Amino acid sequence: MVRIEPTTGTFVTTIITRCDVSQLVFAAFSNRLDAVELARESTRRLEEQGIASSLHFLDSDVTPQLDSSSLVISLGGDGTFLRAARLAHEFGASILAVNLGRLGFLLNVPSSELIEDVKRSMGSTQVVERLALQIRIPRSGDEFAFNEVVVERAESGRMVRVQTFVGDEPYLTYSADGVMVATPTGSTGYNFSVGGPVVDTTLGVMVLTPIAAHFTIDRSIVVGGDRVLRLTADGKPAIIVADGRTIGTLHPGESIEVRRNPRPVRVVATRDFELGFRLRESLREGHA
Amino acid sequence: MVRIEPTTGTFVTTIITRCDVSQLVFAAFSNRLDAVELARESTRRLEEQGIASSLHFLDSDVTPQLDSSSLVISLGGDGTFLRAARLAHEFGASILAVNLGRLGFLLNVPSSELIEDVKRSMGSTQVVERLALQIRIPRSGDEFAFNEVVVERAESGRMVRVQTFVGDEPYLTYSADGVMVATPTGSTGYNFSVGGPVVDTTLGVMVLTPIAAHFTIDRSIVVGGDRVLRLTADGKPAIIVADGRTIGTLHPGESIEVRRNPRPVRVVATRDFELGFRLRESLREGHA
Amino acid sequence: MVRIEPTTGTFVTTIITRCDVSQLVFAAFSNRLDAVELARESTRRLEEQGIASSLHFLDSDVTPQLDSSSLVISLGGDGTFLRAARLAHEFGASILAVNLGRLGFLLNVPSSELIEDVKRSMGSTQVVERLALQIRIPRSGDEFAFNEVVVERAESGRMVRVQTFVGDEPYLTYSADGVMVATPTGSTGYNFSVGGPVVDTTLGVMVLTPIAAHFTIDRSIVVGGDRVLRLTADGKPAIIVADGRTIGTLHPGESIEVRRNPRPVRVVATRDFELGFRLRESLREGHA
Amino acid sequence: MVRIEPTTGTFVTTIITRCDVSQLVFAAFSNRLDAVELARESTRRLEEQGIASSLHFLDSDVTPQLDSSSLVISLGGDGTFLRAARLAHEFGASILAVNLGRLGFLLNVPSSELIEDVKRSMGSTQVVERLALQIRIPRSGDEFAFNEVVVERAESGRMVRVQTFVGDEPYLTYSADGVMVATPTGSTGYNFSVGGPVVDTTLGVMVLTPIAAHFTIDRSIVVGGDRVLRLTADGKPAIIVADGRTIGTLHPGESIEVRRNPRPVRVVATRDFELGFRLRESLREGHA
Repeated sequence: MVRIEPTTGTFVTTIITRCDVSQLVFAAFSNRLDAVELARESTRRLEEQGIASSLHFLDSDVTPQLDSSSLVISLGGDGTFLRAARLAHEFGASILAVNLGRLGFLLNVPSSELIEDVKRSMGSTQVVERLALQIRIPRSGDEFAFNEVVVERAESGRMVRVQTFVGDEPYLTYSADGVMVATPTGSTGYNFSVGGPVVDTTLGVMVLTPIAAHFTIDRSIVVGGDRVLRLTADGKPAIIVADGRTIGTLHPGESIEVRRNPRPVRVVATRDFELGFRLRESLREGHA
Repeated sequence: MVRIEPTTGTFVTTIITRCDVSQLVFAAFSNRLDAVELARESTRRLEEQGIASSLHFLDSDVTPQLDSSSLVISLGGDGTFLRAARLAHEFGASILAVNLGRLGFLLNVPSSELIEDVKRSMGSTQVVERLALQIRIPRSGDEFAFNEVVVERAESGRMVRVQTFVGDEPYLTYSADGVMVATPTGSTGYNFSVGGPVVDTTLGVMVLTPIAAHFTIDRSIVVGGDRVLRLTADGKPAIIVADGRTIGTLHPGESIEVRRNPRPVRVVATRDFELGFRLRESLREGHA
Repeated sequence: MVRIEPTTGTFVTTIITRCDVSQLVFAAFSNRLDAVELARESTRRLEEQGIASSLHFLDSDVTPQLDSSSLVISLGGDGTFLRAARLAHEFGASILAVNLGRLGFLLNVPSSELIEDVKRSMGSTQVVERLALQIRIPRSGDEFAFNEVVVERAESGRMVRVQTFVGDEPYLTYSADGVMVATPTGSTGYNFSVGGPVVDTTLGVMVLTPIAAHFTIDRSIVVGGDRVLRLTADGKPAIIVADGRTIGTLHPGESIEVRRNPRPVRVVATRDFELGFRLRESLREGHA
Repeated sequence: MVRIEPTTGTFVTTIITRCDVSQLVFAAFSNRLDAVELARESTRRLEEQGIASSLHFLDSDVTPQLDSSSLVISLGGDGTFLRAARLAHEFGASILAVNLGRLGFLLNVPSSELIEDVKRSMGSTQVVERLALQIRIPRSGDEFAFNEVVVERAESGRMVRVQTFVGDEPYLTYSADGVMVATPTGSTGYNFSVGGPVVDTTLGVMVLTPIAAHFTIDRSIVVGGDRVLRLTADGKPAIIVADGRTIGTLHPGESIEVRRNPRPVRVVATRDFELGFRLRESLREGHA
């Protein structure tokens, strides 16, 4: 045995053990009054402690000036977190999710507790770099997704036919409502609804799953973050949806390429990974 | 034990053992050139044998005058069959499906064989009365479906919340892409793609299945044809899709009621029930 | 159209609207002390009201003398109910299930409430005749099942290969842990665990589902109670398990035939069908 | 941002780009006559070319003396490969799989082709180090598995209750036929049958999936190879099955720990990863 060659860092998740936060930005949707109220009170109380912070409305046209030492604090549910993560990612900033209540229940976090969380996050805390997707779209630039990207039917009541490729190698062709590529972060979202596996968020992998596939296998496939996944519309146009936003159209024969985004999303780890707890809670909520 | 009371004929499938056909109508979509060609040749050859027949384009604005002694011959794939079945149903006519190739492969039926089938169907053959759905829609009349009706999300990237009821009794509430009620005939269609069971087409039952349900149970429920299923949009508008056609919108709080259509669809049984064969073929095609 | 011929009563569920109970038998397993205690107290209190009743231990060797006017009261969980139903079925007696707690939680029913239930059941109540299975086994007599029958692998770590037939027609062949035929009553039991649909217990249908099928379709098929399902062991021996009891072995090439049992199980309907409630409760328990 | 600390090599798959083979061992089961014949002919023809090789019967009591420069050539189906891989793993030898026909079809490989494969493997080829499992069993030593380990019911017709833990953190508790931990190599085996995802074999991850779980979530969870998974029997004894072999019993309250085996299995990569092809073929075979 002669030469040993590790693959090029593909599955290494980086944990940054300290972040010197220079800027605090609360992020919320302006119609989420409870979140806005919480942000305002927290800003005021932080100011009393000599700590500057600001509030950014995620539905405004303004883009705040952030950098890699900024900390974005997402106040809201999953939609808020995804939008705030996209903002943080654009500048390499870190993100702290205060409430990940999947089903959008009202926030019930006292501002004193929030402030403690924020202050802890400014000090010596861990930031986990989570895999995001980079989506190459025909006749357009690259797009970002943190949960998933879906190539789906353009109209109700019709299936799309999607060819899939792992690298250059053809994988299965699906007649389906759509085909999804999800990240570990997105694995408990839409991916979960269509039968995909829950994936440890520290893993640098991608999950491909068909949605309502007709007369074929519907298992997910999990591939490494060094692979490129290609999805080709076959026969009919399809639309491309990233994290719930429609970002483009695929004409027949056109493809998107999905790969690991060169820049991960930096998520402040406020407490230990406790997936079982969240799943059990979500399941109970789901049957409420 | 005193009185024995059978339920009111709910699960009785009627088989009519002879049909005296008085009118033959080939039905095809006008852009399906192979089907049109086949219909024209068959019409001509039947005429030579003294049998009158006509060709109806399913995508035309004209509605042909049929009655319960008419036989509609569907030439095409599933979409053709569904459209032709709706036409036949409107008049209580019978329908003969020449090719049920689910994946839309070109017809490869010689006209001589077709003519034999048609002539056999005019004589002493069996007509199976299959369950169809009647869909009661708010602010509108009743609609027909032969495969399934779906209450689904009005926009991509969003879930709908749908409450379901069996009669007056609340069943589960789903956050999902949609919720479907399928017939036995539709059980190998979209219902199959979303995990629903295959149902013997002679059964008078309905199948309710969620589509990409989030964090809840995704099993189907099979209920008798005497039940009324109610689906209520909860929180967001939803659209109603029957056999692939969008037939309405549900505003939050509004419901559709789905029940057994008082008039079944009369399908000429050309050969024995051979479900295993069709499934195996479809599965092989599905992986082609 | 000439002759109309209904199929032979296949899907008619009979509801008997009154039962004159002449004998009351509480049924419990002797090691279920809470159930035994409850039975003893109820027997005593009924006696004070001039109503005779007795307690039968389901794990004893004695078979009580019942007839079609007997009412068996099952005290326990699912296992108790299945064993008591088999006993009641043998004599055409009716059965009342006091507690259907699927997960075997301790009974928490006060004897006063139980006595009210029992007395109501003796009067003018409804008895639903539910479909049971008759299983024809090679080199042996017929067997009874009320939930399901499974043809499964004889040893751990091995698959069985099972050919399935609907009537004489070959359906799919499975390499799997096993293949199951379930009744509507059993549809929320093992059938549910392996992905089968929930079926309205008033329906006269059977559900065939593979268990951990390898590289083939795993959808259930629902067929009418007038069909005969045949399962053939292919290549390796398999065991036959009915309602959790091993009842025989299939040598390679041998088959079981599964059909609607000519005698249904008579279940006293104590309250309305409220499936959604039970499912929601079970789901919450399941995640406890 | 100060210190960047990669996790400790968890997801790095090593590819060794050259192996100097010093010993060739064909491995087959003695009752697999076609394999034995092929091995004998190949041995003879290699000898004519001055290359020594031997034949080992996997069902014999003898253990051959191998070392890390040995190449084991597995001749047979999946069972043969698993047994041969365990042998190769014990000595750190490499393994070449000649035929992975999942459904046990007869070998149809000419000896000339086999010899070419073997000679290529002796030269400059790639060896992929695939993740294997190490299973810590109470009152016993550690065990090896290359496909999966299952904690399952000890008797037919009964469920087991299994608590699961990711590290020290409780995950879900299942009432089920069993709970499985599979490797990427095993992901297309039993894991696939129970709904688990297909996993790229170069990934250093493990997949936990319940088998026929009752009234709870049945999604798989994918975790990194640096995690320890713990499965605890709750209430009833369970058996432990690794790669199809029963290797022990769990008494109530006892646990197994499953982790990445410190020594991977070295598999000679004879041709490019072509997963889609194998899946498509298997699916077609599965419906044969």
